[in-house]
Order: sequence, then structure tokens, then C-alpha cells
Amino acid sequence: MPGEFELIDRYFARPRRGGAGGRGVVLGIGDDAALLELPPACDLVAAVDTIVAGRHFPPGTSPHAIGHRALAVNLSDLAAMGATPAWATLALTLPAAEDAWLSGFAAGLLDLADAHGVTLVGGDTTGGPLTISVQLLGHVPHGTALRRSGGRPGDLLAVTGTLGDSGAGLALATGRLQAPAGEHTTELLHRFEYPAARVAFGRGARGIASAAMDLSDGLTGDLPKLAAASGAAAHVEVARLPLSAALRDVASAQQARDWALAAGDDYELLLAVAPARWDELAALAAASALRLTAIGELRAGSGVAWTLHGAPYAAPAEGFDHFRGPSTQITV
Amino acid sequence: MPGEFELIDRYFARPRRGGAGGRGVVLGIGDDAALLELPPACDLVAAVDTIVAGRHFPPGTSPHAIGHRALAVNLSDLAAMGATPAWATLALTLPAAEDAWLSGFAAGLLDLADAHGVTLVGGDTTGGPLTISVQLLGHVPHGTALRRSGGRPGDLLAVTGTLGDSGAGLALATGRLQAPAGEHTTELLHRFEYPAARVAFGRGARGIASAAMDLSDGLTGDLPKLAAASGAAAHVEVARLPLSAALRDVASAQQARDWALAAGDDYELLLAVAPARWDELAALAAASALRLTAIGELRAGSGVAWTLHGAPYAAPAEGFDHFRGPSTQITV
Repeated sequence: MPGEFELIDRYFARPRRGGAGGRGVVLGIGDDAALLELPPACDLVAAVDTIVAGRHFPPGTSPHAIGHRALAVNLSDLAAMGATPAWATLALTLPAAEDAWLSGFAAGLLDLADAHGVTLVGGDTTGGPLTISVQLLGHVPHGTALRRSGGRPGDLLAVTGTLGDSGAGLALATGRLQAPAGEHTTELLHRFEYPAARVAFGRGARGIASAAMDLSDGLTGDLPKLAAASGAAAHVEVARLPLSAALRDVASAQQARDWALAAGDDYELLLAVAPARWDELAALAAASALRLTAIGELRAGSGVAWTLHGAPYAAPAEGFDHFRGPSTQITV
Repeated sequence: MPGEFELIDRYFARPRRGGAGGRGVVLGIGDDAALLELPPACDLVAAVDTIVAGRHFPPGTSPHAIGHRALAVNLSDLAAMGATPAWATLALTLPAAEDAWLSGFAAGLLDLADAHGVTLVGGDTTGGPLTISVQLLGHVPHGTALRRSGGRPGDLLAVTGTLGDSGAGLALATGRLQAPAGEHTTELLHRFEYPAARVAFGRGARGIASAAMDLSDGLTGDLPKLAAASGAAAHVEVARLPLSAALRDVASAQQARDWALAAGDDYELLLAVAPARWDELAALAAASALRLTAIGELRAGSGVAWTLHGAPYAAPAEGFDHFRGPSTQITV
């Protein structure tokens, strides 16, 4: 029933949303392709991430939270490059066009797009199993993007915010973790359902941090990539991992550490920074009321070593939380 | 089994493919996002299209043809803008990582990418039902892109190539059309399985044609959009539709016309051109050995009128071929 699917159009083409008058939008939704104008002396930055029902969010997740997540995971990639997000396209495959679902999903996606000045400039909708791909485009002044490869031995390793909250939130959402409902459980569920991308901080960290990447797969999955790209070894003191009061309240110390290390979905930034530049990075974080924690350092060599109060620590394997399922970025 | 999925990486990161050394690629596959450099004085052009198993290709389609199609449908969108394609990202959701499928799919996509100078600069792979989204990025000199909205009453309407072959090819592939196997059935199957995007012709038509779009949903689905965007009525003489010898051989005259009008998936270009510029457009087509056929004209008013030898003709509805299923571009 194509007619049913044509209804979808209206959810993504609201006044002052969906391509009308966005910055740099020469031609938005409604032709064969969008026409966009990059600011002068900038590189184009492009990221794409897919989220699939049952893999990246459990059944029963609100459509508003799904819409938020579909864009947030891409915003986080651009934050890690120090880029300014500008335009998004949406590839939405869904089994049926239900009004309540679509209006919630569109609101979740467009609310976050508005908050970051992002214009939805195109996309398509197709009948099929629920799969959502967002491609996000943005820009960064030539030669200034943060990369994974810029770290050097001697750099401090730092993370924004707190880690493990999203893992606990997912465990609460799926019933694997039982805790009395209250302020802390609400906060953890929110951290899972509404990840915040550190876009402003990433932009500010250009020229200060030597390397950055976003934490989508957990430190145990992501830090080895940054270390390898930078041609360095990494050492992390697990006791320094920033844990929220909410996480410490609902989980054992061991469980909290393991979620912080390996549950993923935190969408905080992992950065390398020369010790001489630490104060600048800390001031940037303070200015945006964002916690910044030094958790270790890069050293000569290769591989990642974890210690807990100085003693070797066996970090849980990436993806130990089986809900996440197989998912990987294409890497060289 | 994440390990299984990490195998996928190698299919898309071959030497001289997958981001290494492509034109304008500052940073390709392997970081949080790609960094790309647009040629000077150009607009960025962005398109995204999803193909889903059972919707856009029947079960049993070769993975090489699926990989080709995933990129071709996007190349066709850029062709319709007169743009030069440059970079692609891939969001691939698939149920299992099978070597034969993945190597065939990657070869189909990358063979076509190479033929058009397109570099794969990023993407992600996720476990789930087979869904393939390609986003294609390209460029066009400021202010020169072809649009759907540029047509004017009095313009001729023209199409490239022949129409309906893909509809016949799909009918052959799915057993709805029976015909003795031979050169013609092979040709029609190939037209369905390996659509050719008219990229060079679209680029050449900039400054000559007044409007363009690609024919993915058939004339009955697409022409009303061009006419409406141009603020004009359209008239098409169905007897003028370009039909291949292969199509006329395997189908009745009525069936051939209806496939040409409404089966879709032809990925030819529909253009509006002022009569005074016709010779230039025809010369461009001749130079690339591409058939170009005037099929009607734009007139003052609105709506689309079809005639057959001058008498009103009831064109079949868009999507009369039920295999295609619900699918729509997001339009304003």
C-alpha cells in the first residue's frame, strides 16, 4: 500500500524543519538529491551509523528515544572529529506506517537535530524490518580535525562525563538489573535512552587534544583502536574511571567497573592530550560543566594494559553484554 | 559472534579501493568519520537510497548484482542533478557474514564505484535482516545543478535509453513472464540486474536541459513530480515511448507499453528541454551512443495527460507491479 507510506512524508517535512531554510542548504528535501554549500576553507566530514531493533535498542524502547539515538550516535562521531554537524539524511526501513510511532520517532530525531542546528536534507522510507541509518554531514576547518592517530607516548588519556551508566540503564530496561525505582534508576535509564553527544566539547578540543574518538563500544573495544592508530601502547588505571553516584548506587563495585569498561553506548569522548595542554582541556570541560577525567596515558610500544590500584586487571571482553550483538565499523 | 563480523572489513578495504588515495579523500575508512575535500566553487550533492531484499530485488538475485544496484540507484540520482559522484558510505545490515555473498556483493559495488571514480569512505555493518543503504556524495559547480523544477510550458519532454526493459527483466526473473531463453531474455534480465546510471549524460546536460529527474518509479510515478515541481502540465504520446527490440519481442504491445510507463527501475533520465536547445541535447546523446527520444511536452496548467496515437490513454497506476512494494522518497 504505497499510499500508506506516502503519509510518512509529512512527519519529516515540518515548517522550519526538514530542509526549509537550513544553513548552507541550497536545495533540501524534494529533488533527486540535496544541494549543500560548505563554509569556505573547510573539509567535509561524513559519518554513517545504523541502528537495528533488537540489536541497538530493546523492544519497547519509545520511538522518541529511537529517533534521538539514530542521530545521536552520528553526532558523537562528528564530535570525535571536532566537527560542526550541519546536514543529515535518513534511510528508514519499517514494517508499517503507524502514526504514533512515526510522530514520536520524527520528534525525537528532529528535536535533537534542532538542538544542534542540523537540517534533514533527504532520505527514503522503505517497507521492511525496522532499520534506521542516518548519515550525518558536517565541516571542520582544513587540517584541524581531531583524529584517532594523533596520540603520542607521554600523552594523558582522558574521558568526558561518566562511564557505564548506559550499560546499567540497558540492564534496567531489559530487567537484567533489579533496583528500587527512584532518581538514580531514572537517571541511568535516561543515559541509555538519550545519549548526549559531546559536540561542543569536541569542537573546542581541536588544537588542544592530540587525538580523539567516541566511546560507542566501551573502552575495551575502543581504546585499542586509538592506541593502534597512534602507534602507541595505552595504560589505564581502572580505579580512576569516572563512575556516577547513580551507577555506584545500583551496582556492585565490580559490576560498575565492568560496565564502565565494556558495556559501551556511553558516547563520551576518549582523548589523548599532551600533559602541557591538560589545563586548557580541563578549562574547556569546566566551561561546559562537563566532567573530564585523566584515566591513564599513552606509552611507547603497543597494546593496552589495565591496572586496578596498580595491580594487573583482567578487563571484560568487548561485547560481553550480549544484547549488543555483532556490530562493527568498517576499518582498514 | 562479533569476530565473524569483523571479517567483513576486508571485503571493503582492498588496495586502491575502499578509501586509499581516492580523489579529494583527506581521510577515508578507519576513523570516526571521513574527511573530504570538495573542488573549489562547487556545491555538495548528497543522495541516499535503501534497497531491501524482497522489495527491490527478488530472492536469488546474485550478490554481485545487489552490490551493483545499491550504488547504481544513487548514481542515477546524482546523474539527474548533473553532478559528479565522488564518495560513498555504506550501511550494510545482513543476517550472516557469508564469504561468497560478501565477496560478490563487495565486487559488484566496488566494480561500479571504480567505473565512476567513486571512493568508499566509510560505513558500518550490523547484524539483522538484509538492508543496504548507500549514501552518495558528489559535487556540481555552484548554481548549475539540474533540478526537477526548471521546466517551462513549451519544453519538450525527453527520455534516455529505452523504457520497460527492467520491468520485463524482473518478470522473467520471477517467472511471471515466460519466454524462450535467448539473446533478448538475457538482455532484459541484464537491464533489470545491472541498471546503468546516465552520469556522463546528466553532467553534459547541465546548461542545456531545463529540468531533469531519474526514472526509478516509472513515468507514471515520476513525471507528475517533475511537472508539479515545474508548475506545468505534461502531455505524453505513449506511442513515442522508446521500446527495445528485446522488449517488443517478448511482450505484447499493450504489456510493453505498460511496463514502459509504470514498471519502474529503468534508471533512465527524464528531461525537459526548450525546443531551441533540442539539437544540442540530441548531439550530446549521440556523442555517448545513447538513445534520446522526445515523448511529449510541458504545457500551461497542471497534471499529466497520456495519449496513444492522439486518443486519451489510461496509463496503469504507479506500482501496478506489486513486487516493488511500498517505497517512497521523502518529499515536501
